[in-house]
Amino acid sequence: MQRYFIDQAYQSTVEISGEPHHHMSRVMRMVAGDQVFLVFSDQTAIKAEILSITSDSVTLEEVEKEQLQRELPINITIASGFPKGEKLELIVQKGTELGAFNFIAFPGESSVAKWDAKKQQKKQQRLNKIAQEAAEQAHRQALPKVCFTTEKELITSFAEYDAVLIAYEESAKQGEQAQLVQTLQQLTAGQKLLVVFGPEGGLTPKEIERFQAAGGKLCGLGPRILRTETAPFYLLSAASFYYELQH
Amino acid sequence: MQRYFIDQAYQSTVEISGEPHHHMSRVMRMVAGDQVFLVFSDQTAIKAEILSITSDSVTLEEVEKEQLQRELPINITIASGFPKGEKLELIVQKGTELGAFNFIAFPGESSVAKWDAKKQQKKQQRLNKIAQEAAEQAHRQALPKVCFTTEKELITSFAEYDAVLIAYEESAKQGEQAQLVQTLQQLTAGQKLLVVFGPEGGLTPKEIERFQAAGGKLCGLGPRILRTETAPFYLLSAASFYYELQH
Repeated sequence: MQRYFIDQAYQSTVEISGEPHHHMSRVMRMVAGDQVFLVFSDQTAIKAEILSITSDSVTLEEVEKEQLQRELPINITIASGFPKGEKLELIVQKGTELGAFNFIAFPGESSVAKWDAKKQQKKQQRLNKIAQEAAEQAHRQALPKVCFTTEKELITSFAEYDAVLIAYEESAKQGEQAQLVQTLQQLTAGQKLLVVFGPEGGLTPKEIERFQAAGGKLCGLGPRILRTETAPFYLLSAASFYYELQH
Repeated sequence: MQRYFIDQAYQSTVEISGEPHHHMSRVMRMVAGDQVFLVFSDQTAIKAEILSITSDSVTLEEVEKEQLQRELPINITIASGFPKGEKLELIVQKGTELGAFNFIAFPGESSVAKWDAKKQQKKQQRLNKIAQEAAEQAHRQALPKVCFTTEKELITSFAEYDAVLIAYEESAKQGEQAQLVQTLQQLTAGQKLLVVFGPEGGLTPKEIERFQAAGGKLCGLGPRILRTETAPFYLLSAASFYYELQH
């Protein structure tokens, strides 16, 4: 069943215009009686039935609330040093399926990609669209946002999180294994975790130093060397396994 | 440091020809004294130094053995119903980084992709090349193989594994959570796990029935609906987290 993220707080009877209306009426050619999932900005998700469609709005009524909790109990934000080509698109698409709360992209010191403000704005729009489609497909109850920051803004934001991890390839090479497990154990429902990933060339020693000075903890993700776009999938899958299957 | 999979059993001094020789001498323009990693067919991995290079072979001597165990303690084979486009390439590349032991592709009942024998052979070659590159990059000590089978051959092969899981979207929808944890708990080092994933349309009820009759157990991968190419990443990451970080 089609799923729509609605930029309004929950109401049991709701009138919708804009893009979801266009999609229901023009793309899907829905009619009164058809059912869809609606996800409101407060994360309430309902199954709803179309009461009526006009040329510029659709009115729906709640059939039932979605019972299954589909969001990770902790909010995980993925910060990625600008990777090459379309890798950020892959990170956002798969990361959204795997439950990421938000995404941040920042220019890493070894990033080959150099994106100016205009390019960043365009890319951000595209990435938010990808996140929305992935969130609909994955039956998410929250819509991840993608934003671009500088390293400085990223480091300043560390204070907003309950824990900050730095995925570091050298940790994997040295067999570091404990940090991720420890961090997941310590966090409780509703808390916020930020995990920082380098671009293809990895994080530089100076970046590592600055991130650690701001409270980030180095963290290995198993003994194999993961590509920059693969490492977030590992982190999110491990967190889901830990919180949603084991506990 | 460059990593090569060598189709010979371990020897402390080894003479190599064929593609690895070509890559060392022509592509990398290596000379005597340069060092590389060699991984032998018995999974022994060594750091080795080039003693001499001729026009058709290179002779290397062991410097030291690689100490860190980089392979998952259980062998996980990923079986995928033919997905669309280049998704199998993504599954094999990322799945190899994440530690898969082998890959099997089979025509699912709802597979849109129809690949004849010639196409399959070409695709198989390409996928094995992708697996090799990903295994080198990820510092694997085993080289995953990719093969194509029929559903019948796949089911016959169930008997060769210590456990067979069927990733089933309906299990996720119904909130099934226990099977993956239970299976990972039961398996011990050296044992073999097969996990079967459907194509985009999912596995059909009849396929599920046949897989279950042959001993496969249905398994959910968390509460979000994962795309066909994302689900194997979740499975492999969860297994790595469980065996390599938690235990």
